[in-house]
Amino acid sequence: MRPELAINLVTLGPSIDFGAAVRLCAAYGIQHIGVTKEQVRSIGAGEANRVLRGEGISVTGYARVPAFPRRDEGGWQAALDEAFRVVDEARTIGAATLIATGGQSGGEYKDLHRARLYFAEGLEILLHRARQVGLPVSLEPLHPMYAADRGLFFTLRQAVDFCHTLPDKVGVIVDAYHLWWDPNFVDDLTRATGLIRGYHISDWRLPTRSLLTDRAMMGDGCIDLPRLRRLVEEAGYRGPHEVEIFSELDWWKRAPEETLKTCIERFATHC
Amino acid sequence: MRPELAINLVTLGPSIDFGAAVRLCAAYGIQHIGVTKEQVRSIGAGEANRVLRGEGISVTGYARVPAFPRRDEGGWQAALDEAFRVVDEARTIGAATLIATGGQSGGEYKDLHRARLYFAEGLEILLHRARQVGLPVSLEPLHPMYAADRGLFFTLRQAVDFCHTLPDKVGVIVDAYHLWWDPNFVDDLTRATGLIRGYHISDWRLPTRSLLTDRAMMGDGCIDLPRLRRLVEEAGYRGPHEVEIFSELDWWKRAPEETLKTCIERFATHC
Repeated sequence: MRPELAINLVTLGPSIDFGAAVRLCAAYGIQHIGVTKEQVRSIGAGEANRVLRGEGISVTGYARVPAFPRRDEGGWQAALDEAFRVVDEARTIGAATLIATGGQSGGEYKDLHRARLYFAEGLEILLHRARQVGLPVSLEPLHPMYAADRGLFFTLRQAVDFCHTLPDKVGVIVDAYHLWWDPNFVDDLTRATGLIRGYHISDWRLPTRSLLTDRAMMGDGCIDLPRLRRLVEEAGYRGPHEVEIFSELDWWKRAPEETLKTCIERFATHC
Repeated sequence: MRPELAINLVTLGPSIDFGAAVRLCAAYGIQHIGVTKEQVRSIGAGEANRVLRGEGISVTGYARVPAFPRRDEGGWQAALDEAFRVVDEARTIGAATLIATGGQSGGEYKDLHRARLYFAEGLEILLHRARQVGLPVSLEPLHPMYAADRGLFFTLRQAVDFCHTLPDKVGVIVDAYHLWWDPNFVDDLTRATGLIRGYHISDWRLPTRSLLTDRAMMGDGCIDLPRLRRLVEEAGYRGPHEVEIFSELDWWKRAPEETLKTCIERFATHC
């Protein structure tokens, strides 16, 4: 059975507002979208939920859990407040999962192992709250080029191993862009069976001109997406396949409708 | 005992020619340099050797072994010719090791596992020749952001595991920039004891503006270099610590002497 296509709203770029983006997706038959807190906060979680319900669209993942500093540092309480806020917002918009990456803000911890311990302390408090409201939480390993500021987990194995240390069941998001190079991807997908809560797709552009916003449309890069899809499906994942393209230099310059139509076409032909 | 400092000539940028770069290093008491084939070919391996001997400088690593396509593809014979040529050149300049990264030229193989099999076929032929002339060969794992075109091995474990599949002993180069995020770095360094033939240093700039040429001077980024140095030394490595900074936007714009003096100073204070 053909998997369902989800669109992460970042793909449509910053030129379109939340309501218009949701309506555009609905007009093209998209039933699932992924969103960031910046997008949701631009109109408020309650209003975002009304827009989504009005169009019959459900939310896959809500990004993302804040970074957690050391407990005795100034930013701890602010991070906790933010953590509770994203749990509430994710619930309000009915997100299937809240997404964490573990990222720091600004590379302040040179010792990534220690940064992961600090992150775990905050995450455990967030998980307690999430459990109370019945919200699943997922960890997304990021590409190692984000190790300085955005991520703390860089292979699927490292993410799954970390999840197993937590008191609550935490799922994983598999993103082709972040993990296509992962040396143990095949074995570790098998270990991740039952934990996979999302599969994100885009492509790796050659050359990549910016670390953050130069992802390619599926089919325009060097990731073997049909193979990754097969592996993810063999690992039991049956949810939507979500296009997530940050592309300041290309797709974000185009009309959102053109980008969306291309996503739908390439999903059918190149994924 | 304080390790010796080596300078990879790429650090001084493209504004200085091979001879002047070697003499500048010698003037500052540097006794070891790392070089690329482009630099050596700019004056020829024989002349490069005369310049180096004249200044009493030895070569650490010679970069790099070509990519190998599928044996039945057009580029195979050209790759073999190039492989034999770099072996000869490395011998001519007396390099302590010839460096391989496995890289492809242009992301033509989406299946990295298969690309590694093709690479192994070519490498085994190169190793036979290298053994005949007594030239050690080393594999350098690269950062995963080079997976599309330059590298095939992205963690120390993956590089060491691959080395163990080869018919000849192949060493590894540990580069802080490529591996600082590596989840199993500590354990895998222990496994690499006796295999480490080089340790490269620089720093990870935040933000990184270019994938290829935006490395930072030691101390200006977020890599815990004193910790990595300790780990590499605990793994038994006693050779020179080699500064390798690609920095089109900063250090290559400065006078090579300023860059060199800063390397020497930062090596003493931040590594």
